Amino acid sequence: MNISDIGEFGLIDRIDAVLGEPANSDLLMGIGDDAAVYRVDEQKAHVVTTDGLIEGVHFDLSFMPMEHLGAKSLTVNISDIVAMNARPRYATVMLGVPGYVSVEMIEDFYRGAKKVCDAYGVTILGGDTTGARQLTISVTVIGEAEPEKVVYRRGAQPGDLLCVTGDLGSAYAGLRVLLRQRVELQEQGESYQPNIAAYRHVINRNLTPTARLGFITGLAEAKILPHAMIDISDGLASEANHLARKGGCSVTLHEAKLPIHPQTANVARELDESPTHFALNGGEDYELLFALAPEDAPKLDPGKATVIGSFEEAGDVAEVTLIREDGSPELLVASGWDHFGGGEAG
Amino acid sequence: MNISDIGEFGLIDRIDAVLGEPANSDLLMGIGDDAAVYRVDEQKAHVVTTDGLIEGVHFDLSFMPMEHLGAKSLTVNISDIVAMNARPRYATVMLGVPGYVSVEMIEDFYRGAKKVCDAYGVTILGGDTTGARQLTISVTVIGEAEPEKVVYRRGAQPGDLLCVTGDLGSAYAGLRVLLRQRVELQEQGESYQPNIAAYRHVINRNLTPTARLGFITGLAEAKILPHAMIDISDGLASEANHLARKGGCSVTLHEAKLPIHPQTANVARELDESPTHFALNGGEDYELLFALAPEDAPKLDPGKATVIGSFEEAGDVAEVTLIREDGSPELLVASGWDHFGGGEAG
Repeated sequence: MNISDIGEFGLIDRIDAVLGEPANSDLLMGIGDDAAVYRVDEQKAHVVTTDGLIEGVHFDLSFMPMEHLGAKSLTVNISDIVAMNARPRYATVMLGVPGYVSVEMIEDFYRGAKKVCDAYGVTILGGDTTGARQLTISVTVIGEAEPEKVVYRRGAQPGDLLCVTGDLGSAYAGLRVLLRQRVELQEQGESYQPNIAAYRHVINRNLTPTARLGFITGLAEAKILPHAMIDISDGLASEANHLARKGGCSVTLHEAKLPIHPQTANVARELDESPTHFALNGGEDYELLFALAPEDAPKLDPGKATVIGSFEEAGDVAEVTLIREDGSPELLVASGWDHFGGGEAG
Repeated sequence: MNISDIGEFGLIDRIDAVLGEPANSDLLMGIGDDAAVYRVDEQKAHVVTTDGLIEGVHFDLSFMPMEHLGAKSLTVNISDIVAMNARPRYATVMLGVPGYVSVEMIEDFYRGAKKVCDAYGVTILGGDTTGARQLTISVTVIGEAEPEKVVYRRGAQPGDLLCVTGDLGSAYAGLRVLLRQRVELQEQGESYQPNIAAYRHVINRNLTPTARLGFITGLAEAKILPHAMIDISDGLASEANHLARKGGCSVTLHEAKLPIHPQTANVARELDESPTHFALNGGEDYELLFALAPEDAPKLDPGKATVIGSFEEAGDVAEVTLIREDGSPELLVASGWDHFGGGEAG
């Protein structure tokens, strides 16, 4: 059977079935969240995530400088730790390196990785570097938290508000700008001058994403503990579906409330596409999507997060419904990026 | 600059220079040992290692069934944890999967991984599976130990004995048998009947290596704490050099004492090569090489480990000398496997 027949989530279910139920009383969360969680002592849990980034699948070296790649590889994993409401502490890096990658390029990669690690208080523990046919990166990040402060994908309750940090769809808008600029460069040759200024926000969001560690620190200071949380790597629609299904609640999202940066909206319109589609399905935002008890809403900093919807009792199935700006409802099917087919996942 | 100009160890030094001295008082060991070590509380340290295995570099699917590959990927990382005198607890797995790998093959991989994890008390926390051009595996294993019981590569003292578990060179002998059988299969076609029985030990040592967790448990029961330890992945000569340089001691090895299995010696002779060369440079043994205080020697189980040499005060440089069976000394230069060039590393 081909993996494309069952998709990434189908494959995860198969792996899960092979592994069975782990017999480890220290394990608080195994497969099925942004990161796994295990108790290390009475006061402390550790949170671990691993993500691979592979050339031609996750990135294109022709518009991804190695220093940005190093930074992004760490950031996307740190974001998974932050999405568990944990503090990232340690990282390991495995690099598979093809012949055309020089020593200087690897140094640039680690320069970027170190900058990010310094910014988030993460120590790189080392790892492994070996030959490979395509540039392959696997990063593991370990974080820590008090066990009762870890926030999972499950846990949303009817009546909770659905909130998101930052803005949505901009990393995808940045990708589309970079792809278009590459075509223009090929057509126009050396004389081509890309318009960077008009797209600075969206390009930066694609090349140098941010993990929202400052936001969860702020939540802790405001004594807010979200009921459920996830980071947006595959797209809002996909992640809202995760929170809905894991929490056994349905979600209503309001198109009018989606935080979309003016540059994102501009790019979508230039391409004759919908800014809302970018926000729902673009992915790689690395914003936090979370379920908030309504009584905590007044404590939320409106400059840092937006209430975009709410959770309700589910019917037979937990569903995500988008209320369009004209008031019409639309059922949303998750359609994140499929890392096997290169198309949309089921 | 090409990586092959400076080699794997040169590259590690470059990466180390970019990362600089980590500012983290919980870090007990960063880059430069079998695994990194950090303190999690007063009584507990965690030990972390990451290793990549890449198709065509570390393994050949034509004689490595996926279930064995899953088992081996976990075992080699577990061995790194054991070499720190720590107990392996958790693992994450990143798989980069090309189109010709089926769902069933991935299930087989995880079946092998799980068998090993169950045997060593390790819980698989999950990981990431994504597309790739060649089968790529990155495994991270996390172990635990009392901070003062962790054994590093450094620490050997003049007068210590050099000891090794199991036997040496057999995994490499197994590789040579498998390579020869492949040639014979190509020449003789379908009628070819490989002689498995005569080479069972060496083939098993290559395809299904063992991490010596039972041995370190035995050491603890015998109240033996080695002064320094490493697992043999690149070959005895290379690892003895690590213990010598890190400990600032020279090492004398006795050819007559090297534990070599009769099948290993047979394979070497069949190929007109030296069994001692197999033992010194074969690699992938995953045996433990350790420095033992001489007063602990009587407590060592002679069925499980062999004294093969001793540590002395170093001159200007820490050196490894092999005393040949005829009594002549020979300076050993580390020559482990180079994962970039595919040849011998400098």
